[in-house]
Amino acid sequence: MTQIKKIGLFTSGGDAPGMNAAIRAVVRTAKYYNIEVVGIRRGYEGMINGELFPMDGKSVANIIQRGGTILKTARSEQFKTAEGRRLAYDQLIKHGIQGLVAIGGDGTFTGARIFGSEYDMPVVGLPGTIDNDLYGTDFTIGYDTAINTVIDAVDKIRDTAESHDRLFIVEVMGRDSGLIALRTGIASGAEAIIIPETNRDINALMDRLENGRKDKSSKIVMVAEGEDPGGAFEIGRQVKEKFPNYDTRVSILGHIQRGGKPSCMDRVLASRVGVAAVEALRDGHRNEMIGIVHNEIAFTPFEHACKHHVEINANFLKIVEILSI
Amino acid sequence: MTQIKKIGLFTSGGDAPGMNAAIRAVVRTAKYYNIEVVGIRRGYEGMINGELFPMDGKSVANIIQRGGTILKTARSEQFKTAEGRRLAYDQLIKHGIQGLVAIGGDGTFTGARIFGSEYDMPVVGLPGTIDNDLYGTDFTIGYDTAINTVIDAVDKIRDTAESHDRLFIVEVMGRDSGLIALRTGIASGAEAIIIPETNRDINALMDRLENGRKDKSSKIVMVAEGEDPGGAFEIGRQVKEKFPNYDTRVSILGHIQRGGKPSCMDRVLASRVGVAAVEALRDGHRNEMIGIVHNEIAFTPFEHACKHHVEINANFLKIVEILSI
Amino acid sequence: MTQIKKIGLFTSGGDAPGMNAAIRAVVRTAKYYNIEVVGIRRGYEGMINGELFPMDGKSVANIIQRGGTILKTARSEQFKTAEGRRLAYDQLIKHGIQGLVAIGGDGTFTGARIFGSEYDMPVVGLPGTIDNDLYGTDFTIGYDTAINTVIDAVDKIRDTAESHDRLFIVEVMGRDSGLIALRTGIASGAEAIIIPETNRDINALMDRLENGRKDKSSKIVMVAEGEDPGGAFEIGRQVKEKFPNYDTRVSILGHIQRGGKPSCMDRVLASRVGVAAVEALRDGHRNEMIGIVHNEIAFTPFEHACKHHVEINANFLKIVEILSI
Amino acid sequence: MTQIKKIGLFTSGGDAPGMNAAIRAVVRTAKYYNIEVVGIRRGYEGMINGELFPMDGKSVANIIQRGGTILKTARSEQFKTAEGRRLAYDQLIKHGIQGLVAIGGDGTFTGARIFGSEYDMPVVGLPGTIDNDLYGTDFTIGYDTAINTVIDAVDKIRDTAESHDRLFIVEVMGRDSGLIALRTGIASGAEAIIIPETNRDINALMDRLENGRKDKSSKIVMVAEGEDPGGAFEIGRQVKEKFPNYDTRVSILGHIQRGGKPSCMDRVLASRVGVAAVEALRDGHRNEMIGIVHNEIAFTPFEHACKHHVEINANFLKIVEILSI
Repeated sequence: MTQIKKIGLFTSGGDAPGMNAAIRAVVRTAKYYNIEVVGIRRGYEGMINGELFPMDGKSVANIIQRGGTILKTARSEQFKTAEGRRLAYDQLIKHGIQGLVAIGGDGTFTGARIFGSEYDMPVVGLPGTIDNDLYGTDFTIGYDTAINTVIDAVDKIRDTAESHDRLFIVEVMGRDSGLIALRTGIASGAEAIIIPETNRDINALMDRLENGRKDKSSKIVMVAEGEDPGGAFEIGRQVKEKFPNYDTRVSILGHIQRGGKPSCMDRVLASRVGVAAVEALRDGHRNEMIGIVHNEIAFTPFEHACKHHVEINANFLKIVEILSI
Repeated sequence: MTQIKKIGLFTSGGDAPGMNAAIRAVVRTAKYYNIEVVGIRRGYEGMINGELFPMDGKSVANIIQRGGTILKTARSEQFKTAEGRRLAYDQLIKHGIQGLVAIGGDGTFTGARIFGSEYDMPVVGLPGTIDNDLYGTDFTIGYDTAINTVIDAVDKIRDTAESHDRLFIVEVMGRDSGLIALRTGIASGAEAIIIPETNRDINALMDRLENGRKDKSSKIVMVAEGEDPGGAFEIGRQVKEKFPNYDTRVSILGHIQRGGKPSCMDRVLASRVGVAAVEALRDGHRNEMIGIVHNEIAFTPFEHACKHHVEINANFLKIVEILSI
Repeated sequence: MTQIKKIGLFTSGGDAPGMNAAIRAVVRTAKYYNIEVVGIRRGYEGMINGELFPMDGKSVANIIQRGGTILKTARSEQFKTAEGRRLAYDQLIKHGIQGLVAIGGDGTFTGARIFGSEYDMPVVGLPGTIDNDLYGTDFTIGYDTAINTVIDAVDKIRDTAESHDRLFIVEVMGRDSGLIALRTGIASGAEAIIIPETNRDINALMDRLENGRKDKSSKIVMVAEGEDPGGAFEIGRQVKEKFPNYDTRVSILGHIQRGGKPSCMDRVLASRVGVAAVEALRDGHRNEMIGIVHNEIAFTPFEHACKHHVEINANFLKIVEILSI
Repeated sequence: MTQIKKIGLFTSGGDAPGMNAAIRAVVRTAKYYNIEVVGIRRGYEGMINGELFPMDGKSVANIIQRGGTILKTARSEQFKTAEGRRLAYDQLIKHGIQGLVAIGGDGTFTGARIFGSEYDMPVVGLPGTIDNDLYGTDFTIGYDTAINTVIDAVDKIRDTAESHDRLFIVEVMGRDSGLIALRTGIASGAEAIIIPETNRDINALMDRLENGRKDKSSKIVMVAEGEDPGGAFEIGRQVKEKFPNYDTRVSILGHIQRGGKPSCMDRVLASRVGVAAVEALRDGHRNEMIGIVHNEIAFTPFEHACKHHVEINANFLKIVEILSI
């Protein structure tokens, strides 16, 4: 095995708190093993456009606590074409890069998988997305921070809901995954949760509202945005129609969920997988996402990380039902 | 002057963080002066419906740090009728109440003023609203907390805006007043602020975006909701049309601005005016709002507190222009 | 199996954020299964003194987000005597209690184990302690909140350390366990961590400070209090002696680590084990702690939960070394 | 009046949240008026040592929300000597600096006043200190953030104090000034406040504890550190001696009070005086601190800003007495 001397590092897809902690861990670990690091700005797009620059231990000083990503991120249409990937590869070769660490989610790893099948360039991935929808890791970097941001917001909404005896429909992020809605629904004492995995069952919600405890002064319904941000407005409309005597409001939490200082757990997760990423490249790993399963570092081929669907723990739905009694 | 022996206390209109600190201060001060306190739930509506109950020092233990209002609040159509006000007065007499402390905003004091002109019942008011739009006090209870909530949210949005090079249109509360938008715009480093007082000047915004520094990676435009919540969507539409190359997003912060633990300043303000309210009733004050002007307790007749419009400090707009250079 | 009809519930030992979420879960789940709940104030001490009262669904409304424990907690010398335990048992029988849910840590479960060996009273325990030092659960209720409180504080200290080029010795809680120091040390980018499990190795610290990167403007050393709160002062003294040119300060974080709103993960953990506790009593479990291992509910006999020592993940120490490069 | 073309900017003394917002405002405003800015690192010490570097609009991007000071700060013994000040002046002249903006407190302005009397160099000052102890401004930059940090910490301590029925002695910062203790004492519902201005009257505290409401489950005593950090331990000792049945604890909040994201009000204050500082130098001001009094920009000669003692509002002490009833 030839020892790797220089690696590239980038973030891609939606940003997530903790990405900076992962960047710091990769750069510092590379330094520890005498490997040079080239930062790539704006993901695959910047790779194609040559936005590459050297990083050292100081480049990542005092960023562990910052939200967002200092490497910036972008979505790239070009990289979906063979021509785009060729341009990207040329840049990597030009800079002497022998391996890549990609921090991102589903789309990032799909790109990496295709790239890895076309060119001889080892790529390992770190799970960076607030959605927690990747197979091969118990948690993704950013999820823990995002759910804390959500409950902080919903606690505030609960204050005003209690004061006015209101019903709030709160929409949280999570594309095709209800994992943010599920944990935050439990944690904010929501009366009901509507997630894509259960087909956003409106009738169950109506039943719950119909038959729930009558003496509750406020009610929270947590809705996952699914493929369709803003869908909470339609649910709100239906609830208002059926329960005109409720003072019903809709709140879309939106982009605040992507930002903020990463939580302790997100920083630890990012640091652990960041260290492991560099060690994995040294050990010859490629085409794998590095996550943590049952508190141990776990490697999952990119194709499994993306394709497998994360299952909803049915117990969680039961818990919401019991606890909103 | 007959010594007052029993007072009623209620919150009304939109809830605001710090209302509980004011409630605590009124109840504890009344106890200090051997005055009984009757709590009235749900504002004027509860007054009419007889939702009255005795409060003591312990009723308000450990609430100074809680958002919302333990007395709940509501808007009352009934109280706008002479019949409603008569029913309310009957309840007060029935409970032996000799004076009232009303915590709320413009609508609350308008009701109190009319009530005070019809019945011999001294009423003093405490300024409780996040909008800071009352004449007769430098700040209203809840404003300081709300603007901190806003900048906390916008700091998070800035993280993701920076990572993606985006322009965000952020809508904040404030009915016909731009005071929340103005201070939070300065504090979050917004590139532009759009407020009702300047007719939501879209052209100025377009100029700013056209001619501003080109190398900024993210931009925030702060919009006051004005009479028209959701208006930021239309502004977003126009910006997207004129600047199709910007990655423009809209975020409506919504009801999170009403909740949360009150800030230190809001708790101190609420405590000071709460103490003053009881002392004012003892001293024979009525039909006045109690605020703080230039760090001193100030009394303002209800009709002035409501009718006068709070003026925008033109310097603030200038500051935004200078600092977003 | 006779169906359980009435259970007692208490918190004991040091308080931890999320205990209220656990209390809420136990009460609501009991209601769901038509079991009455008797709350017991101040742990074993209150049990002996007869501080028992009925709880219903409403008793636990709006507490999921509150720090501390509404049932209060205390340490009890009496309960360590056979006479004390007899008095406690008499109270339980007097109130018709057929099972107990104890929320606490090591001392709580030791008491429960002895009590369970003397009297025919099923007891199940929920792990409530910020120290995370119980065998039989991946995390204890309160740990996640506490580590977030710590990094929030250390981020603030980092701001001032950076501005003044200072070295801070920060002491965190954790009796005989370094688990708080370990994760928060990684997450706050500490230059070194001193924990009881590695004998608080001062020489290693001195080496690190001697040979670390010289261009770092601030340094954080994280110290676990161990059995000996305030020990950071002595470490500070030695560092000042050996490195007189450093501007060295000591900060003992203290009791802020016990309070605050529970994090999302702590609320979810507390809710899950709270539901499981009631179901476990119905199923005939006794003398067991209910935790979560690898995301599944796990039962551990009290004697194992207490006696086994939680091991330090050696990788974590390695990570600190690599990342502080 | 010769137009100023180049100014120097530095922070000095203890750091305070909002200093970065002030730095940003000065740099951006200078740019607006086509004035060059030279940043000086580490206050007077760096001025002497030649740590000067050019700043532009981008140097201060995305710092408005950061605690600490990007210019760093230090105390300088050299600058107290005539020789030190001469070296400093030489550096300024060498870099073509025609005016200075100094951000700091009492010591900073004393240095500036002496310097200004010896050399022809206009200096204006911005009040940056968490202590709020400067004459000539209603609030200093950093005070509002610090008091919010304090109440956030004390709210957490209240959680655990309530759970354990404890009395906490909490020491906050504030050298010879009790202003932090005063407002945070009111805002955290403290039972008593001990500040230097009232000679830390222990007897009054003992009376209050002796005669206060007996049914309170927790008590907070807020102590200003005065000239003597750690003095709370001695107070705690005396309280324990006199009230052995109380479970008394001491908590020194320490350096967390200096850090953290600045509050909205601190950012607005810093931005306003930062703009005014540059305009003041253009208008020929010198030897003055720029503060805000009654919401208007106010100029105060350095000697008045330092020498006058800020008076304690006696009403505040009365309020604590009334509200802790």
